[in-house]
Amino acid sequence: MKLIEQNSNFAMASVGKFSNLEGKHFVKDLLQTTSMEVSITSLAPGEKSLYHQHRQNEELFIIVAGIGLMLLDGEYYKIEEGSLIRVAPSIGRGLENNGVEPLKFICIQAKVNSLEGYTLTDGNLVKQ
Amino acid sequence: MKLIEQNSNFAMASVGKFSNLEGKHFVKDLLQTTSMEVSITSLAPGEKSLYHQHRQNEELFIIVAGIGLMLLDGEYYKIEEGSLIRVAPSIGRGLENNGVEPLKFICIQAKVNSLEGYTLTDGNLVKQ
Repeated sequence: MKLIEQNSNFAMASVGKFSNLEGKHFVKDLLQTTSMEVSITSLAPGEKSLYHQHRQNEELFIIVAGIGLMLLDGEYYKIEEGSLIRVAPSIGRGLENNGVEPLKFICIQAKVNSLEGYTLTDGNLVKQ
Repeated sequence: MKLIEQNSNFAMASVGKFSNLEGKHFVKDLLQTTSMEVSITSLAPGEKSLYHQHRQNEELFIIVAGIGLMLLDGEYYKIEEGSLIRVAPSIGRGLENNGVEPLKFICIQAKVNSLEGYTLTDGNLVKQ
């Protein structure tokens, strides 16, 4: 992942085409996010992510390519491109690629119950 | 977007294949996230998103398909599949599809400075 542009108001990077994605890439340190950590991962066929839990952070997984299994609190669920999974902090979660193509996903972690306003209650239109 | 599975610890939905994505889909109400709002959007060629700012929420945009322009604080920047853009709450931001294919992106908003621990300082491995 490479940094492209950065100033006090925004930062831009690139992870390249998803079809070429390999390994795991973390966003926070490079883009200096302060509300979330985000990772972008490709698991090869047969590969598993670490089964883990969190203290304070909720996670949202977005599957962008492939098929696989998600282990949630000891039970397996089928996942595939387009699956979105919100996981509470304290339960175990892990992903496994049981397909023949890479399993690619985005994982966002942010502090549970931290969101106040959102969309129309936090945003407002400005003149372009 | 349809809900697939839900209990007190997690919720799972599907937005379908990204190649078939149309319009804008919000995650929070369906999956009951409490740390973030997430939207998944497809802009047709020539289409623009609303130019807006936020009060408290940082946003991260992840471009998953297509090319376009991002207007940030009055200046245009090229974006494409794999671009990641972190935007501070108070500046204007908007996207525009100036390509010939749909521009598809994920936008995450969460409260600026709300993240405490993350990854290894918030997570721990559990036995599978």
